[in-house]
Amino acid sequence: MNIALKRIAAAVALTAAMAGIAATAHAAPTAAIAAEAPDAKIHLTRVTPSYWKVTFASPPLNIVGPAEVRELVKIVDLIESDKQVQVVVFDSNVAGNFMAHYDLLKPLEESTGMKPGPTGMHPVPDLMVRIARLPVISIVSIRGRASGIGSELALAADMRFISREKGVLSQFEVGAGMVPGGGPMPRLTGRGRAMEILVAGEDINGDLAERYGYVNRAIPDAELDGFVDTMARRIASFEHQTVVDIKKLVDVASLPPDAEMQVGWDAFISSVQRPGTQQRLQALVKRGMQTPGDVETNLGRATAEYKAK
Amino acid sequence: MNIALKRIAAAVALTAAMAGIAATAHAAPTAAIAAEAPDAKIHLTRVTPSYWKVTFASPPLNIVGPAEVRELVKIVDLIESDKQVQVVVFDSNVAGNFMAHYDLLKPLEESTGMKPGPTGMHPVPDLMVRIARLPVISIVSIRGRASGIGSELALAADMRFISREKGVLSQFEVGAGMVPGGGPMPRLTGRGRAMEILVAGEDINGDLAERYGYVNRAIPDAELDGFVDTMARRIASFEHQTVVDIKKLVDVASLPPDAEMQVGWDAFISSVQRPGTQQRLQALVKRGMQTPGDVETNLGRATAEYKAK
Amino acid sequence: MNIALKRIAAAVALTAAMAGIAATAHAAPTAAIAAEAPDAKIHLTRVTPSYWKVTFASPPLNIVGPAEVRELVKIVDLIESDKQVQVVVFDSNVAGNFMAHYDLLKPLEESTGMKPGPTGMHPVPDLMVRIARLPVISIVSIRGRASGIGSELALAADMRFISREKGVLSQFEVGAGMVPGGGPMPRLTGRGRAMEILVAGEDINGDLAERYGYVNRAIPDAELDGFVDTMARRIASFEHQTVVDIKKLVDVASLPPDAEMQVGWDAFISSVQRPGTQQRLQALVKRGMQTPGDVETNLGRATAEYKAK
Repeated sequence: MNIALKRIAAAVALTAAMAGIAATAHAAPTAAIAAEAPDAKIHLTRVTPSYWKVTFASPPLNIVGPAEVRELVKIVDLIESDKQVQVVVFDSNVAGNFMAHYDLLKPLEESTGMKPGPTGMHPVPDLMVRIARLPVISIVSIRGRASGIGSELALAADMRFISREKGVLSQFEVGAGMVPGGGPMPRLTGRGRAMEILVAGEDINGDLAERYGYVNRAIPDAELDGFVDTMARRIASFEHQTVVDIKKLVDVASLPPDAEMQVGWDAFISSVQRPGTQQRLQALVKRGMQTPGDVETNLGRATAEYKAK
Repeated sequence: MNIALKRIAAAVALTAAMAGIAATAHAAPTAAIAAEAPDAKIHLTRVTPSYWKVTFASPPLNIVGPAEVRELVKIVDLIESDKQVQVVVFDSNVAGNFMAHYDLLKPLEESTGMKPGPTGMHPVPDLMVRIARLPVISIVSIRGRASGIGSELALAADMRFISREKGVLSQFEVGAGMVPGGGPMPRLTGRGRAMEILVAGEDINGDLAERYGYVNRAIPDAELDGFVDTMARRIASFEHQTVVDIKKLVDVASLPPDAEMQVGWDAFISSVQRPGTQQRLQALVKRGMQTPGDVETNLGRATAEYKAK
Repeated sequence: MNIALKRIAAAVALTAAMAGIAATAHAAPTAAIAAEAPDAKIHLTRVTPSYWKVTFASPPLNIVGPAEVRELVKIVDLIESDKQVQVVVFDSNVAGNFMAHYDLLKPLEESTGMKPGPTGMHPVPDLMVRIARLPVISIVSIRGRASGIGSELALAADMRFISREKGVLSQFEVGAGMVPGGGPMPRLTGRGRAMEILVAGEDINGDLAERYGYVNRAIPDAELDGFVDTMARRIASFEHQTVVDIKKLVDVASLPPDAEMQVGWDAFISSVQRPGTQQRLQALVKRGMQTPGDVETNLGRATAEYKAK
């Protein structure tokens, strides 16, 4: 396979990787499956029986690929089936990156054949919908870059807090020719700001993310962990049924229909297969994408520097 | 009746108090009924024929119970039936409190038997819907604490301004085990911020309330009264039909369906009857809730300090 | 025709002018029609094949009347039929005014008889809907006053940036007795802020416009042109189909139904014909409206100074 074909395979892999997870994903979950696998890239910590933490721990970039999606599916299975958990915090222990983006280099065969999740959708949009609908309050704590699927995971959660100095959000996909699924963005930020975030694809720092409603609040970096921990413990101390019922009421007024996620997914699938997108993805990978360095650190700028042949 | 039972009765009273108002509430209103009753806890002032003011005046906390709900129903009747009124400002003349919360101590018999309002809903959600739909512009001016039903009244109104230094908003209910009705919160603040406000139940100061879209603006305390009065007089000077028509257009695009208020109400009713909620309410009352002091002044903190037996 | 009647005719002209455009508007467009007419009040510049600029250039106030609506219709025709254009920036080259408001003085006969646009609506709401639905990203750059139809054009576009020091937005109509169409306002700013903007009708400066979500961002005046140009070139450099598909996804979640624009239009038509509105319009014109000076510069204040006879 020559380089060009390999690149195309990689991009198709990206597509396929998001489209299915091994059938075992929904077997009866046990704590050991996800949390204690020796090579787990995502750590599950039960801080207390009602307050869990999901930590992305795949240096240097916290790239998410098929294997990480499988881990995340198992963790969501565990959360769904536990009777005590009431709050889940998602964070990262990788300096500089909450979650860079989806894996652009994995070979095709690792991703094809993934089966739909319980919602009937491909595992990635399925995960987003399941996280949004968890009978648990989810809080995302963003330090470092949360791009692409990292931003989408943050949007799927119930609340988002970001390090004012060290957090970056972006939906860089447009710059690589891809249509980001987007999900609930327009309902959070309003039409004009959603359009800007999705169609200009620039890096958004903590301050602007707060002003745009992209996150709940930007918190000074030194206070972020304590702030999120205090809020998580507070919510975890409340009556379980009350917390669940409040979430349901908020859902009625604010949760997009699942069908929108499918529409976004279909648009993504179409976009990634177009020749122009393939060329942009190849150019970005050639310049260093998916390796720590300038392109990953300044993804918003890097995507704007592409010149068509 | 022992203390525990009395407490339970009180909480049921809270439920019932919100569920009906004496059948006389919709008799033909006269100015004297509400505005001039010598023991009125809510004052109605006709600043001009087109600009009225509703002032909560029940020291020390501006607690709202069945009697105050009846007064408010009569005032809303008056507003609905007047041909000239065009703007209504809601404020408080009680230092430190716009409206603390609903009465947690009133005996059962004062509240049971209340009949539904004109919308067919219990009088409290009925009031919220009627205020939202008034053919009049409503402005809430918040100085001091507006918690629980105080926050819900503010959300039902058309606009909210808060003292930057002396205003506090909160939906503390979750900390007492109760599900707040919520109403239009998610549409004002977005899903993430609504979830935080309702499920973390913390005190929100003026600055944060503005950043979250919970209020229109936080205004320096020294300027708040003048700002609201100027805006009220300005709107009152415009063409009546034009003002009404603009409100109708905004309603089409932004008013939640009445049915959502009913769903919220039902969730509240269920929550208040649960044993865990009863225990939390009793513990809070025992620590001083409903009496001026630390618990009322720091309700957000107080609700987090409950330890189950 | 005496002055009073002429004034009434002018106001009716306003109504009618917004209600139809000559049937030729949808003839096959050519670059020459709009962009190169020697007396064009709106300049169309093709900065690059994929990045166009529409500049309002009708000093001293950038008043829009029937002739300007016809020019704008032709420009929108050109944009809709071009295969390469991907971004359109709307700005003004008139100091102090992005677009003051609709023409209040044009004689009746210039405006009557205008035919509906392709959506079946009157040309002004038709233009707003067509701009919102363009398969192109539209960015409005606001320096000076954007009132009435200027604000509505900004709201119809995909993104809005305003000069922090020199930008003013307002829906002044209520102060002249008119119901502004409004459009997507409540979905951008939330119910409370939309109500304030539309029913108080005050001037909104750049800072407040940003805090209210009325615009994407307020940008320091010295940086505004460079900021918008950089963003436009960035978006213009991306894959055409990807940009179009992203806009469609955002539309699903955020674009008001066209029918709302019609409802707003009908309310406007009714309001402008009422005697109180006629009197207010006459009083404003008598005091200097539509001529550079205090009334136009401080329209928010001027509309509040009307005293009924």
